[in-house]
Order: sequence, then structure tokens, then C-alpha cells
Amino acid sequence: MVKITLPDGTKKEYKENITIGEVASNIGIRLGERALAGKAGGVLVDLSYPIKEDISLSVITEDTEEGLEILRHSTAHIMAQAVSRLFPGVKLGIGPTIENGFYYDFGLQHSLSEEDLRKIEEEMAKIIREDIVFKRMELPRDVAIQKMEAIGQPFKAELIKDIEDETVSFYTQGDFVDLCRGPHIQRTSKVKAFKLLSVAGAYWRGKETNPMLQRIYGTAFFTQKEIDKYLQFLEEAEKRDHRKIGRDLDLFSFHEEGGAGLTFWHPKGARIRNIIENFWREEHFKRGYEILYSPHIAKINLWKTSGHWNFYRESMYSPIEVDGHEYILKPMNCPFAVLMYKTKLHSYRDLPLRWGELGTVYRYERSGVLHGLLRVRGFTQDDAHIFCTPEQLESEILGVIELAQFMLSSFGFQEYEIELSVRGKGEKDKYIGRDDVWDHAENALKVALDKKGLKYTRMEGEAKFYGPAIDIKVKDAIGRGWQGPTIQVDFNLPERFDVNYVGPDGFHHRVVMVHRTVLGAMERFVGCLIEHYAGDFPLWIAPIQMRILPITDAHTEYAKKLQTQLLVKNFRVECDISNAKINYKIREGTLEKIPYLLVVGDKEIESGAVSVRSRKKGNEGVMAIEDFIKTVESEIREKR
Amino acid sequence: MVKITLPDGTKKEYKENITIGEVASNIGIRLGERALAGKAGGVLVDLSYPIKEDISLSVITEDTEEGLEILRHSTAHIMAQAVSRLFPGVKLGIGPTIENGFYYDFGLQHSLSEEDLRKIEEEMAKIIREDIVFKRMELPRDVAIQKMEAIGQPFKAELIKDIEDETVSFYTQGDFVDLCRGPHIQRTSKVKAFKLLSVAGAYWRGKETNPMLQRIYGTAFFTQKEIDKYLQFLEEAEKRDHRKIGRDLDLFSFHEEGGAGLTFWHPKGARIRNIIENFWREEHFKRGYEILYSPHIAKINLWKTSGHWNFYRESMYSPIEVDGHEYILKPMNCPFAVLMYKTKLHSYRDLPLRWGELGTVYRYERSGVLHGLLRVRGFTQDDAHIFCTPEQLESEILGVIELAQFMLSSFGFQEYEIELSVRGKGEKDKYIGRDDVWDHAENALKVALDKKGLKYTRMEGEAKFYGPAIDIKVKDAIGRGWQGPTIQVDFNLPERFDVNYVGPDGFHHRVVMVHRTVLGAMERFVGCLIEHYAGDFPLWIAPIQMRILPITDAHTEYAKKLQTQLLVKNFRVECDISNAKINYKIREGTLEKIPYLLVVGDKEIESGAVSVRSRKKGNEGVMAIEDFIKTVESEIREKR
Repeated sequence: MVKITLPDGTKKEYKENITIGEVASNIGIRLGERALAGKAGGVLVDLSYPIKEDISLSVITEDTEEGLEILRHSTAHIMAQAVSRLFPGVKLGIGPTIENGFYYDFGLQHSLSEEDLRKIEEEMAKIIREDIVFKRMELPRDVAIQKMEAIGQPFKAELIKDIEDETVSFYTQGDFVDLCRGPHIQRTSKVKAFKLLSVAGAYWRGKETNPMLQRIYGTAFFTQKEIDKYLQFLEEAEKRDHRKIGRDLDLFSFHEEGGAGLTFWHPKGARIRNIIENFWREEHFKRGYEILYSPHIAKINLWKTSGHWNFYRESMYSPIEVDGHEYILKPMNCPFAVLMYKTKLHSYRDLPLRWGELGTVYRYERSGVLHGLLRVRGFTQDDAHIFCTPEQLESEILGVIELAQFMLSSFGFQEYEIELSVRGKGEKDKYIGRDDVWDHAENALKVALDKKGLKYTRMEGEAKFYGPAIDIKVKDAIGRGWQGPTIQVDFNLPERFDVNYVGPDGFHHRVVMVHRTVLGAMERFVGCLIEHYAGDFPLWIAPIQMRILPITDAHTEYAKKLQTQLLVKNFRVECDISNAKINYKIREGTLEKIPYLLVVGDKEIESGAVSVRSRKKGNEGVMAIEDFIKTVESEIREKR
Repeated sequence: MVKITLPDGTKKEYKENITIGEVASNIGIRLGERALAGKAGGVLVDLSYPIKEDISLSVITEDTEEGLEILRHSTAHIMAQAVSRLFPGVKLGIGPTIENGFYYDFGLQHSLSEEDLRKIEEEMAKIIREDIVFKRMELPRDVAIQKMEAIGQPFKAELIKDIEDETVSFYTQGDFVDLCRGPHIQRTSKVKAFKLLSVAGAYWRGKETNPMLQRIYGTAFFTQKEIDKYLQFLEEAEKRDHRKIGRDLDLFSFHEEGGAGLTFWHPKGARIRNIIENFWREEHFKRGYEILYSPHIAKINLWKTSGHWNFYRESMYSPIEVDGHEYILKPMNCPFAVLMYKTKLHSYRDLPLRWGELGTVYRYERSGVLHGLLRVRGFTQDDAHIFCTPEQLESEILGVIELAQFMLSSFGFQEYEIELSVRGKGEKDKYIGRDDVWDHAENALKVALDKKGLKYTRMEGEAKFYGPAIDIKVKDAIGRGWQGPTIQVDFNLPERFDVNYVGPDGFHHRVVMVHRTVLGAMERFVGCLIEHYAGDFPLWIAPIQMRILPITDAHTEYAKKLQTQLLVKNFRVECDISNAKINYKIREGTLEKIPYLLVVGDKEIESGAVSVRSRKKGNEGVMAIEDFIKTVESEIREKR
């Protein structure tokens, strides 16, 4: 007999070798039906796993994250089986689950098309109808390698060679066999809703010198309703792709001649960025921040002192030689702020100092991971460094949180998830700085979050070696998470650069340094805003707020005069003097998502008015110019 | 007999070998007295020069630039003679005139002190009293080299070796002999007013591998009054030195750890810069400009296409390697604007496009020429590129001139000198671009200047190979000239990058490109502003506009509340909560040149008022806070 401890602490006794599936059914018929796998002694295993000893057990069902992952992993196997049937001789790479789905890499001469994906889907449906059982088997490592080589699967053989265990496990569905840890669903018929999404090239093991494989992305859900919702979400996300909108609205570009990951901000994109930067600076000034400007390069020794050269070198650009010294493009702004702090002796009465910088940094990223504005090599952080005393830390953190909330809500982000990263237990030697100082800092972050009534997840062991941190992820209009503000206490730089203040006791004390961004980087934030608003920017951000459309050339003069009148009021206003028909002009303005289109013809000129077409409210009819100005002024002021 | 043609065209006959001095005296006694040298056949020569043939002649007198230069050059010789008397064995370097004076380089073991300069001045005064005659002599090149080596003057010998003429000329005063082209004054007693100013190290021939010499700077004038005025000016200029004021007011710093010529903008300096940048952007937007942001690096090929790699390489930083490509820190912003222009097809209806960028560029300058903010390696240009049709050029230039005038007058610069650089005659092959296009462009610049009624100097042959230009030099508060706006037509980049627009005829036409800055660079302009205002910035620019001074700790709360009230109004306001006495706080605020000091004590708290001390208008007594706010608001608005 074996004793099984269930999650609620109940203990049950069964005869040896009872399977997890049998246990589930024994507990309840419904549980047996919804069971997908089990967690025995903390390890995920199949339902067919026989229990041989006393153990803790939880049953994994459909409504869990883990259940969904198992389903998707099994669907990946089904896809590999379908590809093997359709393309005999295909070489199998790896096929893991990822966020929202799975992929599988295939070595194949034939270049897979959209049409092929549909054929593979059909074959998968067939396999599902065939209701094949997933079976686990184990082989000695050497035998496994030989077997994989024998059946023409060199990638699998290579993978096994890297495994150090004596035996390796496989799963089969019918005549299909795949190296796999498992667990899997029991039968292929468990898969009710799946979809193959795309195909892309991927180097074997991500190395550019290895063969290029074809990676098919797909997803699976337990119900058709869920997958429909997800596919609709994907469609919506695709429409919002900032790279597409950026091109359509002429916001930015990247250039082969310039270099990968380097953003060229076109006039309209630059306007958006400038509006955000102005707003950012004003709000920071109001809250007692000052700003700095620092150079984009510095001698390599500065980065050796700061430690970046040691622990961050891979992300740093290669050196530039000047007069026999090596210089580096800055990956961070912090050491510059530290040097400026140190030009004077500071008293505790001077603190806190809040020094912000819209500092453009350059970090080397592999070209494969670059992605539009979201992952670039040169970007402008909305950085700030706060120098304060330990006693001031809590209120400074509180101030940063309030500022971050204000900034985010100004851009229409109301929901976010917060993580508080602290030291891991019993690993105190991993961290720089005194124990009591860490305790104090972790507590200050916690109390600040509590005071604001914010929910957060405490991430034990997730703090960087140099200090605890708060990370905020914001949710956009369609529920996606974006990396947002970060607040990071740093015990490292003050130590390395010997950064002090004179306390009330007349002695020197180590300053507490806080790094923080509230938007992240201009590039990523604008990319995020584009997707959040789907390019439909609120009036205060819109690069062109209004466009005047004279109906014929006869109305151009009035239109131009009106433009000047609106320009003087600091509106961003264009005038379409092309010789196109008015309906075409309206269509163009609509495609460019301009908030207000102002049509002027004889009627409007006579009455000194404009016909207003609002993007949000539709045709608003003829308005006196003064009334229109008042309306939009209040819309801008209120950041609606 | 020889025939002499005077500047007014008069011809006179004299016997052969008459000296220029004799001719001058013959023309008039007064001219003879004031004569310093002559220009015979366009060549500067001594008064003792004997005329041997028919020639044109003008007499150089004291009241001319050339006269002053001759005086200073002779004074340099007198200084070298004095140094030779005081420090036997001194090795002589070169001793030219420079703007406002002269210098001489000496190879000397003894390190020259301030005291030594006074001793040298005394010896010079003695030499002047001795009334020694300057005598010219000529020697064959080889003999001259031997002679210089024999008397222990290796630098002079080296100089002669580089001269290709068969004979070289020397000048002697008594036992002092110096290699020199001349001309000189006739006798040392002509020097009436001179002063040695400073001593500094200088490498022989400016090369760091050569021996270090000691360079003594001095100046000379014809009257004591003139030199007194100049020394007073120097004193005033020294007080205004932006490096000193920058340190005193905590505006910026340079750091050995960062690298030479790289500016660290401290909060107060950054504020000034930010105010200027905001003003700049707003004014540009109002005038139909858009802005861009471009990266700080680009692939080297971009600079090869643009031509910079060819003709500008010495000023460019060495390459950075990224993924097997070479990248370069940008020395210019132009190619980025060109790439952005080229992302779309442009019609003549889209033009002109006015694209500005506050772009930070990096140019390699030898460390010896770096000078505070005025000559740096990294600087932010207030750049703009205008893309227009040839027909639009004139009105675009007019617009730039108007913008430049507006910007300069906003910062209190009312006077300037303008140069129009055009092609040289008969050198048309030196320039890129069609002849008629050049004519058109030169004419457009000229007409624009004429329309604004601006005086300018036409500089024939001073145009760069790629286009004609207008350069504006502004005069600061003490009359010094500063490099200001430049407007440059460029026929090169449109050609090299094939930059076009579609004309009304449906064909592609080469676009006309104008580069321009109206301030120059943020670094140099702020450096200039500091010296122009001597750190006493007008209220709209002052980094701290007002400081509240609570008399005792009991008044701190009110002061803090008042600070918040003023911060909300977007004033830049500090609060001095140190425990210093009120008189000390006032002294501090005065030293920091803060426009308004607001004293608050019991009396002010009772009446909800402040005691106002204006830097410009002195003690203004107690004012209601609202009244104070109104006063400063209008002062800021009017940029007084």
C-alpha cells in the first residue's frame, strides 16, 4: 500500500502501482474527467504514472496554467507528427511551449507556405480524430543516441548527447516518437481547439553558424470560444503593430545605411516624443527635480570604477580610441550623475537631490532580438537619480510612485502589476551592502507601496546584487502587459565612487542612491503608446491636431490665414492645398488619424467659421472659429 | 631717377636709392614723423628701404592696423632681446604678432614667474630708453644656418632649413640678432606703451613630441591711454570668464574621468540650456519648422557617401565595431535628415521642408585647443536643414535671417557683422554644382541681405566647395565678436545622395538644401551668454529666479509654503533653510547672482507678503505676494 497526501492535507491509502489517473477518478468522477496530469512529489508526471511509494500529489486539471501548458506541449507533438507524415524525412528540432502557445523547429528542404500550414492543420485534425494514445518509454542514453541516428534525427541525437542522465525518456503517438520529458495528455482527442499561426526561420540552437530551421508557431486552448477570443486579440494586436502604424503615419524609420536598432525620428514621431519630453520635464520640475545633460561617451576607466565593465560588458559597445585613451558609448547615465554630485561637498540639508536626465544610451543587443521601437540599440531613458539619506528613502520612494502613477494615468494607463524584488533568504553574501541597510531599504519600499494601498508580489531572491527594487508593468488598451516604471535602490555605486554627505553629526555618511525611470525609454514608450492608442492619439499628443481642407483653390487663402491664426495659438495644424477633391482630402485625413479635419468653403468663409469633423465625435457641423478654439483648448488642457 | 606712384594716383620722381622714410618726409613733415614702414609694390618694407625702380608706394602710419602690427612685432623683438640679456643662453623660438598683441617662445631651464615678467619689462624699458636702431641684413641660407648653430640657436637654424630662398633676412638691435622678414620700426624708442601679460607652455612647432618652450604673451600700443583701455577690457573679460563663472555658479564641469572636451551640465547649467532649447523649439515650430531626432552613431559607409569620410576625417572619431560593421560617432546631423527625406517621394507642393534638430555631434579636436564651453569635443548644434526648390531659396534665406535676428535680439545681442562668402573669380572648377545654380544661389543670399537692409562684407573666394554662405558674428556686452548664425547652401549632399522632388512638370529635380544654425551650439552659446551677461542672467534665463530667505527656523514653514505657491506658477525658486544669519543668506544669494531674494520674517508672515531685494533695482521693500508675482511674470514674458 502507498500513502498519498493531497493538497488539502488529506491522506489516502491505495494499493501500490495505482496510476494518478485512477487516483483522480477515485477522488471524484468529475476530477477524473478533467485530469490531465499530476504533480507527484513536486514533479509533473503523466496520468499513467504508477505510484510506488508514499508521496504528495496534486492533480493537474484543464482550468490551470500548468494544464494549458501540457495541452499545448502535446499539440506541438501532434504538429510534429503531422509534419512527419506530410514531409517524410523531416529533421526534428525542439518544440517547447511559449507564452500563449508553442512552436516546433523543423529541418526541411521544402519552404513552408501559408498553404502548408493549413494542410498540416488538416493532418493534425486527423491525428486528433484518430484518438492516439501518448505513451512514455525510457531508453539508456547510448541506445537512445543510436536510435535517433538510425531514424535520421541528428538534432535529437545531439540533444541527447548533452543530457547527463543515464536514461532518457521518449513519448510516442502511434509510429511517431519524440525525445521528451513529458508529461502529456493521455490521448490526442483531448485537443479541442488549436491553430497554427506563422512560420519563421530560426537557427538550430540560436547560433548563426548552425543550419537554419523552419519554426512553426501555433496555439491551443481547451475550448473553441477561448481560441476564438485569442485569435481576435491577435488580429487586434496586429492592427496595432507600432511598426506598421509608424510607417503609415510617417513617425519613424530604421535604415540599413544608419545601422540596426538606431531610430530615425521623423517630424511627426519627433513631435510626439517632444510633447512627452516637455510634459515629463515640467512635471519633474514641479516635483522638485532638476535635470542634467551628460556626454554620450566617457573613458573606459569610468566604467571600470562603476563596475559596468565587469558585469555588463556584453551589452556595451566596443571602445573608441581618442588620444591613446579608450572611450565607450554610455550604456547608463548613472556614473555621470555621480561625478557631478561629487564636484561639491554635500550636507544633509542639501538632500534629497533629484536629478533627472533624458539620457540617450547605447547598448549592444544581438540583431536577432531587435524589434521596432520596442527593442533597439540606442534609446533615451527618462532616467533620474535621487541622492538621499536613509531616513528620506521611504518618502522619496513614495514620491516616485506618485509621479509614476500620475504619468501613467496621463497616458491612459490605469491598471498595472507591481513586483517588489528583495533578497533571497539565506543568501546574504550574494548582496553588496550592510544587512541592516538592506532591511531598512526593503522596508522603505514595502511601506511606500502599502501607504499607497498598492497590491504587489514580493519576489524573494529577485533583487539585483546591488539593491532591492520595485518594477511596475502596465496594461494597455487590449490587456497586454508592458514594462513600465522601475525604482531601484543602489548600494553599489555609492560604495564604488565613495559618495557621501555630511550628516547632522558632522561626520561623512554613505549616501543612498535611487535609480528610477517612470516611462522607461522614449523609444519603447512611444512604441507602446502607438499600440495602446492604435495610432489614435489623444489631442494633446497627436502630432497633427487638425488639418484645414480648403474645398477649392479659391479657399486656399482663407485656409492659410486660418492656419496662421491657429499656429499662433500653438496648435499643430496643417493645411491641405493639394488639388484633390474634398472627399479625397477627408479620406486622407481620416487615414492619417488626424483628430480634427476643418473643411472651409464659401459658406465658412462668409461666416468666419469652419466645418468641423471630429475623429471621435464625427461631423460636428459649422462652428465659429473662436468656439472651435475654446473646445480644443479645453480638450488639450484636460489631456482627454 | 625713379617714378613713385602714391595711393591717390599722384606720381612723383626721386633720385634712385631714396629711402621710403625720406619720401614720406618729403611728402609732408607730419607724415614723416608718423611713418612706420612702407608698402612698396604691395610688399611691406622698412622705412630705410631704398627705392631702385619705378614702383607704387603707400606709407604705413601709426593709426593703421598694419602699423600696430609692426609696432607689436618690434616689441616682441625687444622682449626677446631683454630675455637674452637676463637669461644668457636662452634658445629663441618664434615670436609672431597675434590678435591684440604678440608672443615669443623661449627655450629656458628656468621656469618663468610673474616676477620674471616684471623684470623683463624693466629690461625692455631700458632697451627702449637706449633707443637702439633696428637694422636689416641678409645672409646666404647656408651661412645663416651655420651662424645660428654657432651662436647656439638650434630652433632658428631649423627654421632656416625649411626656408627655400637663397638668402634669408635678419634684424639686429645692438648685439641682438633675430631671423625675421620684417619690416620693423626704425628705433626701439618708438615703443611707448607695452605690457607683458602671461606665460604658458607651448610645444616647439605645436608638436607634442617636441621640447616644451615657455611662451610669453604681451601687447603694445601707440599710447598709454590705448593700452590702459585694453588692459581694463582684459580685466573685465577675465571677470566674465565663463569657466570661472561656471564654477562659481555651479553651472557645468569637465572631468578627467569622463574625458577632455565633454561637458557635464549641472542642474543650473542644464536649466539654462533647457530654457534656451524650449524657446528655440517653440520659435521654430511657430515659423513652420519641424524637428527630428537622429542617432549619435551610424555606419561608416554613410559618411563615405556623404563625403565627410574623405574631407573631414581628421575631425571624426575613430570607428566602433559592431557585428563586423564600422560605426562612427556623428560629426554632423545632415546625412540623417537626408535619409529621412528620402523615405518618401516629395512633390514641390510639400516644399519647403524645414527640419530642425538639436543634434549632439562629436568632433575630434586636439586637446590643446579645447577651451571651456567654447571649444569642446561633444556639442549640441541648433541645426536645421531646409529642403526647397531654387525658387524658394531667397524667401527661405530671408526667413532664416529674420529668425536669427529674432533669436539674437532675444538674448540681448543687437550688433553684428555679416560676411557673404561666394566663389572666387576664375576658379569655377573648384566648386561642385552648375554655374547657373551657383549664380542663382549667390544672388538669393545677396538679395535676402539687401531686403533686410543689412550691411555685409562680400568675401570673394571664401565659399566652401559645396555652396555659398552667410556668416554672422555677434558683438557681446563688452564689444567682443562671437561666431553666431551660419547659413550655408549645399549643392554637394543633394548630389551625393540623389535628393529630389517632383516639380510641377512631373519631372524629378534636384532639391536645394540649406544648412543653418542660429545659435551655433548649446555649449558655445551658453559659454557666450555667461560672458555676455557676466553671469547676471535676465530673469527668463536665470536658473534660479528667486530664493526665499526665512529669517529664523520659525519662518521656515511659511517659506516652504510660499515656495510651493511659486513653484506651481512655474517659477524657479529655492528656499534657504540653512541655519545661517539672514545677512549671510543675503550675501550668499547675491554672490550667486540670484535676481530676486525674498526675505520672510514675522512682519511678512502677518501680512502675507515678502520683502523683495531685486538684483537690478535693489531693495524694493515689502510687497504683497500677488503683486510680486505679477511683476516678475511680466518681466519674464517680456524677456527683459
